[in-house]
Amino acid sequence: MMTKETNQSWGGRFNEPVDAFVARFTASVDFDKRLYKHDIMGSIAHAKMLTEVGVLTALERDAIIEGLSQIQQEIEAGQFEWRVDLEDVHMNIEAKLTERIGVTGKKLHTGRSRNDQVATDIRLWLRDEIDRIKAEVTRLQQGILQLAEREADTIMPGFTHLQTAQPVTFGHHLLAWFEMLSRDFERLVDCRKRVNRMPLGSAALAGTTYPIDRLITCDLLGFEAVSGNSLDGVSDRDFAIEFCSAASLIMMHLSRFSEELVLWTSAQFRFIELPDRFCTGSSIMPQKKNPDVPELIRGKSGRVFGDLTGLLTLMKGQPLAYNKDNQEDKEPLFDAVDTVADSLRAFADMVPAIQARRENMREAALRGFSTATDLADYLVGKGLPFRDCHEIVGHAVRYGVEHNKDLAEMSLAELKQFSDKIEQDVFAVLTLEGSVNARNHLGGTAPAQVKAAIEQAKELLANR
Amino acid sequence: MMTKETNQSWGGRFNEPVDAFVARFTASVDFDKRLYKHDIMGSIAHAKMLTEVGVLTALERDAIIEGLSQIQQEIEAGQFEWRVDLEDVHMNIEAKLTERIGVTGKKLHTGRSRNDQVATDIRLWLRDEIDRIKAEVTRLQQGILQLAEREADTIMPGFTHLQTAQPVTFGHHLLAWFEMLSRDFERLVDCRKRVNRMPLGSAALAGTTYPIDRLITCDLLGFEAVSGNSLDGVSDRDFAIEFCSAASLIMMHLSRFSEELVLWTSAQFRFIELPDRFCTGSSIMPQKKNPDVPELIRGKSGRVFGDLTGLLTLMKGQPLAYNKDNQEDKEPLFDAVDTVADSLRAFADMVPAIQARRENMREAALRGFSTATDLADYLVGKGLPFRDCHEIVGHAVRYGVEHNKDLAEMSLAELKQFSDKIEQDVFAVLTLEGSVNARNHLGGTAPAQVKAAIEQAKELLANR
Amino acid sequence: MMTKETNQSWGGRFNEPVDAFVARFTASVDFDKRLYKHDIMGSIAHAKMLTEVGVLTALERDAIIEGLSQIQQEIEAGQFEWRVDLEDVHMNIEAKLTERIGVTGKKLHTGRSRNDQVATDIRLWLRDEIDRIKAEVTRLQQGILQLAEREADTIMPGFTHLQTAQPVTFGHHLLAWFEMLSRDFERLVDCRKRVNRMPLGSAALAGTTYPIDRLITCDLLGFEAVSGNSLDGVSDRDFAIEFCSAASLIMMHLSRFSEELVLWTSAQFRFIELPDRFCTGSSIMPQKKNPDVPELIRGKSGRVFGDLTGLLTLMKGQPLAYNKDNQEDKEPLFDAVDTVADSLRAFADMVPAIQARRENMREAALRGFSTATDLADYLVGKGLPFRDCHEIVGHAVRYGVEHNKDLAEMSLAELKQFSDKIEQDVFAVLTLEGSVNARNHLGGTAPAQVKAAIEQAKELLANR
Amino acid sequence: MMTKETNQSWGGRFNEPVDAFVARFTASVDFDKRLYKHDIMGSIAHAKMLTEVGVLTALERDAIIEGLSQIQQEIEAGQFEWRVDLEDVHMNIEAKLTERIGVTGKKLHTGRSRNDQVATDIRLWLRDEIDRIKAEVTRLQQGILQLAEREADTIMPGFTHLQTAQPVTFGHHLLAWFEMLSRDFERLVDCRKRVNRMPLGSAALAGTTYPIDRLITCDLLGFEAVSGNSLDGVSDRDFAIEFCSAASLIMMHLSRFSEELVLWTSAQFRFIELPDRFCTGSSIMPQKKNPDVPELIRGKSGRVFGDLTGLLTLMKGQPLAYNKDNQEDKEPLFDAVDTVADSLRAFADMVPAIQARRENMREAALRGFSTATDLADYLVGKGLPFRDCHEIVGHAVRYGVEHNKDLAEMSLAELKQFSDKIEQDVFAVLTLEGSVNARNHLGGTAPAQVKAAIEQAKELLANR
Repeated sequence: MMTKETNQSWGGRFNEPVDAFVARFTASVDFDKRLYKHDIMGSIAHAKMLTEVGVLTALERDAIIEGLSQIQQEIEAGQFEWRVDLEDVHMNIEAKLTERIGVTGKKLHTGRSRNDQVATDIRLWLRDEIDRIKAEVTRLQQGILQLAEREADTIMPGFTHLQTAQPVTFGHHLLAWFEMLSRDFERLVDCRKRVNRMPLGSAALAGTTYPIDRLITCDLLGFEAVSGNSLDGVSDRDFAIEFCSAASLIMMHLSRFSEELVLWTSAQFRFIELPDRFCTGSSIMPQKKNPDVPELIRGKSGRVFGDLTGLLTLMKGQPLAYNKDNQEDKEPLFDAVDTVADSLRAFADMVPAIQARRENMREAALRGFSTATDLADYLVGKGLPFRDCHEIVGHAVRYGVEHNKDLAEMSLAELKQFSDKIEQDVFAVLTLEGSVNARNHLGGTAPAQVKAAIEQAKELLANR
Repeated sequence: MMTKETNQSWGGRFNEPVDAFVARFTASVDFDKRLYKHDIMGSIAHAKMLTEVGVLTALERDAIIEGLSQIQQEIEAGQFEWRVDLEDVHMNIEAKLTERIGVTGKKLHTGRSRNDQVATDIRLWLRDEIDRIKAEVTRLQQGILQLAEREADTIMPGFTHLQTAQPVTFGHHLLAWFEMLSRDFERLVDCRKRVNRMPLGSAALAGTTYPIDRLITCDLLGFEAVSGNSLDGVSDRDFAIEFCSAASLIMMHLSRFSEELVLWTSAQFRFIELPDRFCTGSSIMPQKKNPDVPELIRGKSGRVFGDLTGLLTLMKGQPLAYNKDNQEDKEPLFDAVDTVADSLRAFADMVPAIQARRENMREAALRGFSTATDLADYLVGKGLPFRDCHEIVGHAVRYGVEHNKDLAEMSLAELKQFSDKIEQDVFAVLTLEGSVNARNHLGGTAPAQVKAAIEQAKELLANR
Repeated sequence: MMTKETNQSWGGRFNEPVDAFVARFTASVDFDKRLYKHDIMGSIAHAKMLTEVGVLTALERDAIIEGLSQIQQEIEAGQFEWRVDLEDVHMNIEAKLTERIGVTGKKLHTGRSRNDQVATDIRLWLRDEIDRIKAEVTRLQQGILQLAEREADTIMPGFTHLQTAQPVTFGHHLLAWFEMLSRDFERLVDCRKRVNRMPLGSAALAGTTYPIDRLITCDLLGFEAVSGNSLDGVSDRDFAIEFCSAASLIMMHLSRFSEELVLWTSAQFRFIELPDRFCTGSSIMPQKKNPDVPELIRGKSGRVFGDLTGLLTLMKGQPLAYNKDNQEDKEPLFDAVDTVADSLRAFADMVPAIQARRENMREAALRGFSTATDLADYLVGKGLPFRDCHEIVGHAVRYGVEHNKDLAEMSLAELKQFSDKIEQDVFAVLTLEGSVNARNHLGGTAPAQVKAAIEQAKELLANR
Repeated sequence: MMTKETNQSWGGRFNEPVDAFVARFTASVDFDKRLYKHDIMGSIAHAKMLTEVGVLTALERDAIIEGLSQIQQEIEAGQFEWRVDLEDVHMNIEAKLTERIGVTGKKLHTGRSRNDQVATDIRLWLRDEIDRIKAEVTRLQQGILQLAEREADTIMPGFTHLQTAQPVTFGHHLLAWFEMLSRDFERLVDCRKRVNRMPLGSAALAGTTYPIDRLITCDLLGFEAVSGNSLDGVSDRDFAIEFCSAASLIMMHLSRFSEELVLWTSAQFRFIELPDRFCTGSSIMPQKKNPDVPELIRGKSGRVFGDLTGLLTLMKGQPLAYNKDNQEDKEPLFDAVDTVADSLRAFADMVPAIQARRENMREAALRGFSTATDLADYLVGKGLPFRDCHEIVGHAVRYGVEHNKDLAEMSLAELKQFSDKIEQDVFAVLTLEGSVNARNHLGGTAPAQVKAAIEQAKELLANR
């Protein structure tokens, strides 16, 4: 695997080459080659800055840029040979550059180190990925709004403890998902601010003796600011952990939506239908149509939580500055990015295609004493303290359970057993529409509120 | 344990009382009583709003406020009897209120539910705790600056891979800590925005039929906004998870500082001295002076990571809206808050009292070929490509290892073996001061940069 | 808080007392006092051994044992004053002993250190707790068997992907729970072997110069073996992590059972009824009867996973031997023990009281094409390859979905559309009983197999 | 991506093909193809059993076996085309088999399902991997013994709190590592018992209507027992979690060894030298020789902890039986297996090549008052209570710190200041050899004990 006695980028002081297994074990090129585009982008900016400050000539700069551009094309055409003995994406590209443009290629590394180089690459890369993920969050939110608009008047049972609680509109329920994703979006925006700071110029750990101008590279690469301390610049991995936290919350939310979709497609609920194209079957049971996409995403929440745990563990107790441990930052981060991006994509495709089975939802809402609270509130309106009303209705429910009758199915006489304050007007209160429409305040489930909330939500997305 | 047949707040429909063990197992009062002050604060605001909208009379409101204020005094005087059979802080306070002011007490719960009540309480509480933690972060940063200012010129070896890398100033090293904490502070600020939204008015899950005005309570309680969806309002625990993520990053940083303090107080490093009052001894080894505080804090990082893991697991796969699982949100959150606040406090007390052993630091920096990069850079200045210089110096280091001589200890003739470009002027480059001063750019380790960074940092703190 | 200038057990070399906040922050007595009984047990054995080897006299030994016994009584009577300035349970007890019996009390610590003392205490304590937990696992398994026996013939739909898959018996489903707990029990047994090894005699880290005989204490304390290396003996916390892993698996299983109980008590499933005494209500919705116990336990899985994460993080990267970090081992371990023990207890109380709603289960099994696989198998019996049969039945199901008919509800003519191999005898295959009874092999769902499995399970428990 | 309208193994009831992105998102073949060998092994045993019980003819069986063997060769020659539209390893192999041997290939799936098939495959695979990992643990333990034997008399400082505590032998320190790995080995053995149970025959979830004989396949595949319940058989993933727990403990131990190696190779400790072939250099600092292997392994502990967290989360709250979530079990398990196997391999290669720098170790042991406990024990021998001796020596140490003298460097007169019980014979006690040799009991650090322990350890390994 080793092509010469000792490694070309650092072998001077070594007496023997790296062990073949160790070379493979410690190499990162198999996964960090994914950063090639941002590595080249960073190198080009670095070369331009070195020219500005007089370390490289304009000719050298142009040769470097031309060489790197060709290498990028080669990589994208699948013609680049990645070599494990060159350890990582940086040395692979630099070695090829030197092979191509000669000794000038060796000058590119002036005033920087792989330590600040990789920290810069990964931030550039993650910045792009965050933008991609933000776009998928928005697309999913659009899909939710579309469905919520369609179902703003659809009544379903609202649950707490998975027990029928009160009627809500399906549109209202969907807007709860929307809210969660809005916070997720905010967190991505906040995280991106801290990702978008430039460690380049930290060199190995202490800065460099060359007359670099970090503000030039900062500007060329579109960073918001330079990192303020070189030791911190090369060893900070907060941004990756913060991203994984934000990603974990997204996956947590998707796992909750998934749980609901799985419940709602079950034979017991039958609240919705997922199109066949988002489901798969069973190799043995011919009748099965499984909600694979939500199940899989629910399961995938675990891997992102695991990525987060892994990164926190990685950094725990590390002294400054860069330690080799940090090489382990990439795979969990890549995995979290891919998982959250793909999961959002699958949901964004699927959600607008959900078909509500409105009659089933309505029928379920009619059962389970879902308007019991409305009856209690009705009694409060007649002048009783809430706590007493609660107890009165509790007795009515116990009677209903025993006689298998919902509240709206009882006669006035039956209801009057529990309180003589109950009059004929109670029946308006006990309808689903009565219940839902009565919750007509900011954040409440009344269709009027839901529609207003949808309009606000649309505006929010429009202003992103 | 149960004082009457069935629970007073919800027992109407039940045929038998809760099992005694179950009552204890499901009760939360043992830990959520900690929220009493914020529970009362929320209730008072709720009562005022109910009066504004005509649900309560001014007299009722005043009785409620008076009653709650007395209860608060009683709690703070340690005279309040918390009852497990009343389940939680909310019912304990409400029951006592009703006992004291009669039937009016029962009216306080109109238009709200324990679901939105607890969500409101915990946000009010956490908002205060975040402010307390922010203050401790700032205090620790002030202590770091104080020490960094004292040690801006002190030279120590900078490490990568815990191997001597390049000389840095101790002040520069400390500013790396400062930077980490600045990001932590930013994250607390960002998290606080999302904590500071009001779920009150979500009621059980769907809003309420009473004519509440959420903007009034929002204003009274100092929230930045009301939550936009009632189902989300009662089931959202993102804010607690996001806080635990931010807290985990703080603890991760403290664990890194701790690792360094432990290393630096070891007999092998002897870079610093911790005052006796932050150390403890051994019951068996009379000579021991152990850096207990940093060790313990390093260990405590695990418990906060565990709190985060616990909360993510808790929420995974939960359907809307409130489920009893959510009761488990409090203990991990309380634990994370206490751990991070105490750990910051201990560090803020300790850091300014650290004594640097400057001679030991300097002596360590003189060993380990710490100026090898400077020699390479010197050769680049003589016109060689960096990669070739690196190899030349590598050979010089190998020679030095074999002959037990650092670079500055070699004669010019010895150095010339490796490159005839080396002249007498090399020795200025190989001094510690030469090395450090040469890294004189934004974020670099030169004392001039360190001092400038300290001034900026002071301004940052002054503007908080 | 400090009663004298420097700490009495190690203050000799110190110039100033410990800072008051630090004293509180680093003290462990608030939680480790829980180990008092096992600490005294260990001390008594140590004193006996020291007497055997001639370090203590018989009189000294007797004074120590008498003193410790009195202290134990005092603690159990709630009359012992725990002092934070004495740091931990060990020093509290020893200081009291010396106060009571004089200078002899100071001799007890000969040949040991707090490092091996606490490691011994916690193993003795955990050994007892494991036995308690094992007993709860067994009690829960007994309850499951009782219920499974009652429901061995009850047919319910078996689910995969929460979609109706094939009919199973409820007894069979319950035995799946039994199996999981059997593995949990095995893991506790395996873990206990490694808990039950004695670190005492490791002293601070290197052993002691006193002529101790570890086999004597090992025997007195009922340990299976002594730990083979003193450095490992004081720093090993594997046993706590292994226990938390086993506890996490138990909680994972209970979270799965809980999820099912929550589903089954929902209005949509209504497969079971939980007695009122295991449920609670809502302060606002009078009709609610919430399955709090399973919900809470499902939530509590998170905290035990968090304890495990915390302990793994704690030990990561610690050099030998004892570090103060290790003090953080106790609270997560205590929490995991309490959580798993209480959760098992709640389940063991609740499970035998579960009422199956057999008609609802049966009705659900009749829907959802649960016998589709049986139809495919029937066609295989007629000589077709399984894969082709699968496709034929798939078409029949599609027809059924469109015409809202289950397979057993189709006429022979309708069925023959899909394959002319289908004859009148198909209808026996399509019954629930036919389906269930046909799976009559080891581990299958046929009632005969279920009953045989119950008998085996009873025997397993009887032999524990 | 889809080659026909609907999927061939389950498409009968579906109206539209799976969405192309969903097909890729839900497919597992990219990673589960790794199970091909064990999948074929399981299929061959299944075919043999089906023949025994009369479901297949001998001719059919032989055709299947022949076909599968050819497929295995094709895969191993890299000539097999894996198709994502066929979802997983099972369908890829079965489709190819049918392509090759015709309709008989379709009969192989009789009496089983992918649910029990994959559960069987992964257990067969993991069983082999555990055996491979066990062998690496043993190889590492052999390496440790080799080094410990060489260094049984080498004295180094033993540390607690990373402060010099007492002298120990390097061999003794290494045996602590040995002990940890012995427990890890035991855990692998215990875990393997539970891995080695056969779910095959559970079919989709309820068993099968075919007259299968599970004991035949169990015997053919070398399983210790069949799983007792079909619902549990297809949904149990305990074995993967238990393995990841055991793997996490191994990685935790390796992270501790790594931390020590990193410390010991630092310029401050210089206790050992790692051969160049296990180290790498820096692209910028020519003098660097970094202990990459231990650093990287310390970092890799995080990813295995993350795998464990991910799997626990995955299973949390899943109802029975198989859910698609479970597909997410493989990647974390594969990752944990690879990481722990490679890390052990790297350590097993490296440890015997560690060179102790004995003089540096000795010199370090001479400093730091490492024999202070011996002095206290000496005074106990003169009749003083241990606690008082501790205080006396504490004062002597304080004097030593102030006068920069270790205990052995003080004159008798100086020592007598602290206690007049100190006589000339004290100096024998204060030597390193005196201290070490005095700890001569089971598990103590005396070279005699270390050598005895090495002999026992060799025997242990010999009997594996």
